[in-house]
This record gives sequence, C-alpha cells and structure tokens, in this order.
Amino acid sequence: MSDTEESVRRGRGRRPAAEVRAGVLAAAARLLFAEGIAAVTFDRVATAAGSSKMTLYKWWPSPGALAAEAYFATSEQILEFPDTGDIEADLKSQLHAFVSLLTQDGAGPAIAGLIAAAQTDPDLARALSHSYSRPRRALAVRALERARERGQIRADFDVGIIIDQLWGACYHRLLLPDAPLDADFADALVTNALHGATPPPLPGGSTAP
Amino acid sequence: MSDTEESVRRGRGRRPAAEVRAGVLAAAARLLFAEGIAAVTFDRVATAAGSSKMTLYKWWPSPGALAAEAYFATSEQILEFPDTGDIEADLKSQLHAFVSLLTQDGAGPAIAGLIAAAQTDPDLARALSHSYSRPRRALAVRALERARERGQIRADFDVGIIIDQLWGACYHRLLLPDAPLDADFADALVTNALHGATPPPLPGGSTAP
Repeated sequence: MSDTEESVRRGRGRRPAAEVRAGVLAAAARLLFAEGIAAVTFDRVATAAGSSKMTLYKWWPSPGALAAEAYFATSEQILEFPDTGDIEADLKSQLHAFVSLLTQDGAGPAIAGLIAAAQTDPDLARALSHSYSRPRRALAVRALERARERGQIRADFDVGIIIDQLWGACYHRLLLPDAPLDADFADALVTNALHGATPPPLPGGSTAP
Repeated sequence: MSDTEESVRRGRGRRPAAEVRAGVLAAAARLLFAEGIAAVTFDRVATAAGSSKMTLYKWWPSPGALAAEAYFATSEQILEFPDTGDIEADLKSQLHAFVSLLTQDGAGPAIAGLIAAAQTDPDLARALSHSYSRPRRALAVRALERARERGQIRADFDVGIIIDQLWGACYHRLLLPDAPLDADFADALVTNALHGATPPPLPGGSTAP
C-alpha cells in the first residue's frame, strides 16, 4: 500500500484508538467546562469530536462516566503533587493550585456538577471515584506517608483524614458557598490540620489559661 | 358561633396557618426521606398533606426550597449543639449525632440530594443556605467562640475553618464515598482539628526527629 493509500484509509475513520480517545475526552471536557454536565451527551460529544456515537457507547457506560474521565484528564497536570521534603509547603502549594482551579478556571461548576450528578447516576459515581477521587486521595496519602516517615507527621497518625480536612473542606465551600474559598482559606486549612486549634502547651506542661 | 359550628368551619380548610405549614413540612420530609428529592413536588406534597397547591406556591418559591426547609425542621432537634464547657467533648458528641444521622437514619441520601440539586436550582440553593447551612455554621461558630473565650482555642484562631474541617469533611465522605464515614472518623476529625498532625514539641523546644 502506498503512503497516499494509507493516509486515505486512515482518513476514512481508521485513526489510532488512542488518538480518537484523546479527541473524545478533549471534546467532552470543552463541553463540560463551557456548558456544564448536562451538555455532555454522547450525541454532542460525538459531533464535536468527529467520532461515531457507537465508539462512545463502546468505551463509556454513560455520558456521565465520560465526563468524569474528561475532567480528570484535564485537571491531572494542574493538580500535580509537589514533593520538596517540606510537607507544610507542599500541601499549601497543592491546595493553592486546587483552589485556584476551582475558583478561576471554570472547573468549579464542572466538578460540582459531576459530584451532584453522581448522587443519582451510579455509572458516573463509579467513574468519578475510579478516575478522579480515589487516585487523587492515594497521591495525597503517599505524600503524607513520606512526611510521616520523615517525622513531620505523628507516627500513630491516620493520614487519610487530612485529605477530608483539606480537599473535603474546599469542596464544602464550593458546594455550600456560605464562606469564602480562597488562598487564605487554603493556608489556614493546612496550618490547622498540621498544628491544631488549641493553644500550644506551656513549658511547664499545662496549657495556656 | 357554637363549638360545633367553629369546628365545622375549621374543618373546611380554615386550620391555623402555623398548623398547615407544619403539616406541609412533615409531609415533604416524609417524601424526601423515603423517595429522595425528586419525589418532593408541589403536587405530591399537597396531596400528602391535605393542603391546596396554591398555598404551597404562595409560601415556597420552588419544591426544592420546601424540601430544604423540611430537612432543617426534621434534623434541627437531632443536631442540637451541647455546651458542657469542654469543647472537645461537645464537638465529638455533636459530630457523632451528625454522622449517625447521615448513615443510619436515611438522612444521608436526603441531604446529598439537596446539595446536588442546589447546584442547578438557585431557589433551592438559597433556601438550603438560609434554612440549613448558615444557621448550623453560626451555631458551631458560637460554640467555638465560647471555647476561645475560655482559652480552649488559640486567641488568634479563625474558628470558621473548623466547621469545614469537621462537618465539611463528613460531607466529603458522604458525597464521594471513597473512605468510611463512622464514629471513629468523627473522633479522629475532632482530635486532629484541635491538636494537629505534627508531633508534639520536645521539652527543649524542637520537634521530634
């Protein structure tokens, strides 16, 4: 087969699967960020990506599951977890990136819509957990475990709960917006999760009055 | 007017407004807890409460707003905030009641459904904030401020963030159920919010290795 014949054949819908998949995810993410979760239908994503609806049905159990994977693919790089050896600085810098994503880049309504729709769409709930919330929790747990090995976290401490006290606290202000979600809040969350709200013990061993 | 005439007149739909309102809220709560937020329509609530749909339209801007107020009216007593003078014990006992409500009494799916629907229903979002999340935040803030006055919380500490690190953390596990939501989690949240995850300082002033 000549090069020309090959490119014609590929032009008739024989693009490599990975390329098609990336194109579909990008199109789904554009719809999700611009118009919200309701806009991510197999019809609209197929049209926007120039793919067949059959392909989408084959790869994703529901449009919600596709939307969840698209969100993860888009936010993964922005939400990289630094590891400088200073857990307090690393948590603050990761949480700043997260708050900035939620409040400045249009991702807030997208992830709020995904969490909301997951309450009544089991396929979406599974995809959101599998593609997004579990891998992100595991990433943070590993960073906190390394900090525990370095002695920056108490040896007997279950690091899992810090995930809920940092990122969970941000989702709380995203979903029930009764108080500001900003960089100061992110800093205060990290400071308190690491050092606590009680007064420091006095030299004698008792606490301040 | 004789007693009989009066009771006949009241029987024709002239019950006191407060009584009608309480009946409507109870009927809405029953539907919300049994079948979820989608079941709370003005039609079904009016039928269940024996009230007119016109009354419901007059009192609530949307069925979602009615559902939010019904949830608050039902959970208010269960979620009373104790004040024994020991903030750690009081937070643990309040958070135990909250986790138990979310996981054992069917209220978990109800409040998850309300938070989810609030993301696309501005009337519901306003009602949820006004009837539920703001008053509950204010209640916890007042308890924490009293603890700060007693010296149990650092003087310079913004107590508002503890709300997100306790109740927000529980909502996180309710809405993204990747890790258990139980009494042990509630205890660990309170301990960490008050005492922090870092090792206690050594007598010399430095921290453990």
